Amino acid sequence: MSNNNSQSVNFSETFLNQLNGQPFPASEKVFLNGSDGIQVPMRKISQSDTLLESAQGKISYESNEDIYVYDTTGPITDKNCFVDIHQGLPLLRKPWIAKRDDTLEFIASNNPVPSANFEPQTTTCLRAKKGSAVTQMAYAKAGIITKEMEFVAIRENLNRQAYQSELLKTQQKGESWGANIPDEITPEFVRKEIAEGRAIIPANVNHPELEPMIIGRNFLVKVNANIGNSPVSSNIEDEVEKLVWSTRWGADTLMDLSTGDNIHQTREWILRNAPIPIGTVPIYQALEKVNGIAEDLSWEVLRETIIEQANQGVDYMTLHAGVLLRYIPMTANRLTGIVSRGGAIMAKWCLAHHQENFIYSHFEELCQILKQYDISISLGDGLRPGSVYDANDEAQFSELRTLGELTKIAWQHDVQVMIEGPGHVPLQMIKENMDEQLRHCYEAPFYTLGPLTTDIAPGYDHMTSALGAANIGWYGCAMLCYVTPKEHLGLPNKEDVKQGLIAYKIAAHAADLAKGHPGAQIRDNALSKARFEFRWEDQFNLAMDPMTAREYHDATLPKPSAKKA
Amino acid sequence: MSNNNSQSVNFSETFLNQLNGQPFPASEKVFLNGSDGIQVPMRKISQSDTLLESAQGKISYESNEDIYVYDTTGPITDKNCFVDIHQGLPLLRKPWIAKRDDTLEFIASNNPVPSANFEPQTTTCLRAKKGSAVTQMAYAKAGIITKEMEFVAIRENLNRQAYQSELLKTQQKGESWGANIPDEITPEFVRKEIAEGRAIIPANVNHPELEPMIIGRNFLVKVNANIGNSPVSSNIEDEVEKLVWSTRWGADTLMDLSTGDNIHQTREWILRNAPIPIGTVPIYQALEKVNGIAEDLSWEVLRETIIEQANQGVDYMTLHAGVLLRYIPMTANRLTGIVSRGGAIMAKWCLAHHQENFIYSHFEELCQILKQYDISISLGDGLRPGSVYDANDEAQFSELRTLGELTKIAWQHDVQVMIEGPGHVPLQMIKENMDEQLRHCYEAPFYTLGPLTTDIAPGYDHMTSALGAANIGWYGCAMLCYVTPKEHLGLPNKEDVKQGLIAYKIAAHAADLAKGHPGAQIRDNALSKARFEFRWEDQFNLAMDPMTAREYHDATLPKPSAKKA
Repeated sequence: MSNNNSQSVNFSETFLNQLNGQPFPASEKVFLNGSDGIQVPMRKISQSDTLLESAQGKISYESNEDIYVYDTTGPITDKNCFVDIHQGLPLLRKPWIAKRDDTLEFIASNNPVPSANFEPQTTTCLRAKKGSAVTQMAYAKAGIITKEMEFVAIRENLNRQAYQSELLKTQQKGESWGANIPDEITPEFVRKEIAEGRAIIPANVNHPELEPMIIGRNFLVKVNANIGNSPVSSNIEDEVEKLVWSTRWGADTLMDLSTGDNIHQTREWILRNAPIPIGTVPIYQALEKVNGIAEDLSWEVLRETIIEQANQGVDYMTLHAGVLLRYIPMTANRLTGIVSRGGAIMAKWCLAHHQENFIYSHFEELCQILKQYDISISLGDGLRPGSVYDANDEAQFSELRTLGELTKIAWQHDVQVMIEGPGHVPLQMIKENMDEQLRHCYEAPFYTLGPLTTDIAPGYDHMTSALGAANIGWYGCAMLCYVTPKEHLGLPNKEDVKQGLIAYKIAAHAADLAKGHPGAQIRDNALSKARFEFRWEDQFNLAMDPMTAREYHDATLPKPSAKKA
Repeated sequence: MSNNNSQSVNFSETFLNQLNGQPFPASEKVFLNGSDGIQVPMRKISQSDTLLESAQGKISYESNEDIYVYDTTGPITDKNCFVDIHQGLPLLRKPWIAKRDDTLEFIASNNPVPSANFEPQTTTCLRAKKGSAVTQMAYAKAGIITKEMEFVAIRENLNRQAYQSELLKTQQKGESWGANIPDEITPEFVRKEIAEGRAIIPANVNHPELEPMIIGRNFLVKVNANIGNSPVSSNIEDEVEKLVWSTRWGADTLMDLSTGDNIHQTREWILRNAPIPIGTVPIYQALEKVNGIAEDLSWEVLRETIIEQANQGVDYMTLHAGVLLRYIPMTANRLTGIVSRGGAIMAKWCLAHHQENFIYSHFEELCQILKQYDISISLGDGLRPGSVYDANDEAQFSELRTLGELTKIAWQHDVQVMIEGPGHVPLQMIKENMDEQLRHCYEAPFYTLGPLTTDIAPGYDHMTSALGAANIGWYGCAMLCYVTPKEHLGLPNKEDVKQGLIAYKIAAHAADLAKGHPGAQIRDNALSKARFEFRWEDQFNLAMDPMTAREYHDATLPKPSAKKA
């Protein structure tokens, strides 16, 4: 390890240790109770009182209600729970899974090689007992409401019933474009949405640390962050730090796209410390196994990689099963060809062998594996446009229709599915993407990268794409994959991850408001009221980024008195 | 002047001196020739060749065309023109105005007091000869195509006819929501748009330094930047620096919202160095004249202020003529009351005197003044919503309908008009704003602040509002008033101005693409091609912010070789 790396590890360690139990200012982690000991974390933000002055000059105070915010940070911000990242998070779901009694415990042949400083709490793995599907979809279809379903139902309601103030609860009428968002999310509603494929709870039985969350058109719009080392930079501690940092800024899920050394170990550390679902693109690691030569890939290498990651606890996997041999020539007249890395790998393999995509041709076998772990499949859009020029073309939409066919097959196996989408699409062509996806993929959750609405601002693609993300979220996209300022230019550092997440949390929240998601406007109303009443501290504390809001204010008006008048 | 201020002046001076003749990398200022010596500036970006390798391994090169970009920077980036900001820019329009022979020269009684270091080239003023209207609208209605009209026609076409490459010229079909954008902007088209009130060229006869630009639904979407000192901070040199800085990052117009000391002198320096239209809110200065007591305002004080600013060369003025006495009670149940400063001042006056808004009651007299200078009126939205909660309410839309009535009156006087809009509006309610504006204001250009689509992200309101701005620009808004990261928190510094402008240039460009503005996609295509061919230098140079793109790239891949592969 180079000197630079050791230094970086020290910084990461310091960050992680200091964060333990540290929520945002004026915030406290609270738990909403479900049945049978379920505890759903929320962040509670306290407010100061409003000063009232009567016409006679008499002073009185009116209290302002606590505001509840969706909390993705997990136990690390729980002051009653000391987290040692070298051991991993508490195993929240372990008893839930055990009680279902449909998995068997085994020792994986590719068990993680213990690394210095890392002592996970468990070294065995789970998978379904022979023949059973241990997926949320299987339970949902069987009419079973799981603990995971109840957890997300409570979580999605954001403790709305707690509010007294009519003003806080007042909300503009939304336009949901045909979505079906109830006033209250019940566990039964969650079950039905999952049974019908409109929503997923990515939750591998080998990821017991997970606090379940749901992705679907009729729920809050979610945000995914990508991290990952590469041959160029980064180390394990850096990646864990980025995970914790991502959850701090609101990442609902995280993809580990590592391609460098220690892929397995990095993923192990990430999973054991992740309160949010972790996704991967297994073909990346498979490619490493064949020394980077796409032509040498095979279903067998990929299958082995999928099982290795399944045993570790990966919750969802991007698989480019829709890049069919006959679609590849459709990209010939593109300006930017195939820009999806996974798509390019599969296209290279298909052309070299002149055979059909082996993920497509082994799709049923793939589903047989995934259902034993409850790994959600994220059907990759390998032919997504890489420029405004290539948006919504024949290649892209042909693949999308194939993803729809595969969705039906996965559902037959009770495998949960989401569909990945573009990419680079100008504003006026975004809705067509959503409409085509709904039509051809039967309302399976859509999960898009951006889309970027213009190509002329490298360095600011978190912004060019947040414009597109807000709109597609409004139209019905269930999860937005963030883009950082470094997109197209380099690998994101911590600040880039934060900037990307903030841009996307804004986009997702703007979409929730636009859809008329019940209660979405409460925090807006509370902050606006604090603003109007010059309650600066409350304004900072209610802000998405309290520290930056305060810092910007203090830069020009640093005096304490300026925070009151 | 404090020590801090002297230091700031030095920094500003250094910045301004160093910028002289400095365009962006690989860029050159070129001029497109019109009739009779008209020279329209454009920025030309050169590209490197594409390396081609044949199947036999033979290397050849294919050249890539120069890309032409709209240039707002004025003479300061012209290497053939030395600009001394202490004297001001060359007087481009002086002969055009003189030739029309419809103005008379006079010495204003409130002539600028000479300040140290500042020696403007002229100390006399112009206004219309008695009875005439010297407005672009008057000429347009009379069938006259002015130099200004020809200038903007050439400018709007972006030298599109120069391109050979079909690939570069290929563009996605737009959705313009009923706009009428021709393939080529002709001077006659410009004239007709102005005659019918759908577009304006803000161009006071006392601002001869101006390079004319046009604001209208059927033209490129424009961006406005706000600057201005305040009692808290800033000095004259800082404000000039912010002006130059703003034009560097693409500001099409700029509002000087100064409220502190030296208002008149600051404005004088700004105008004499401004190649773009300058707007003001005259009631701010009028309020200073009555020591900040709104109740003491009067039509006479405002009129005197308007004339003072008219003589200096202010190109457009925001006047809150639509805040009618009977609308004020409509704000009683709002969460955030009246947040427009001008609106609040007028409301306070109306309530104190229980009289109708004096700008409304003197509107014809106001138009008589404005038409003598060709000052465009920007009808302020004094009752715009200050929170998502208050969006699209009765107060806001009542005022909008009044602005429509006033538009008709201004047009009778041949005064050019634009209409200001909100504010804080969630995504799903933005289109209603545009539709109502088009309906009630007869397609007079709409000029909106944002709108901000959520209230929960102070510190990032350039982003929350860029989402709204891109959408309303797409729907037909002609000019987007930027919001900086410091909105609601403090006064923007140079970096904030840049961040606000970049967010808004992205929004405006995304809107141009979405409307299908002819040629809008050329730069996107060129950059995407450079990206696909790994021409890193071209990618940087074509970017909206070449320096940041390069810096981000070099942060992880600093080696020169990484810029080629």
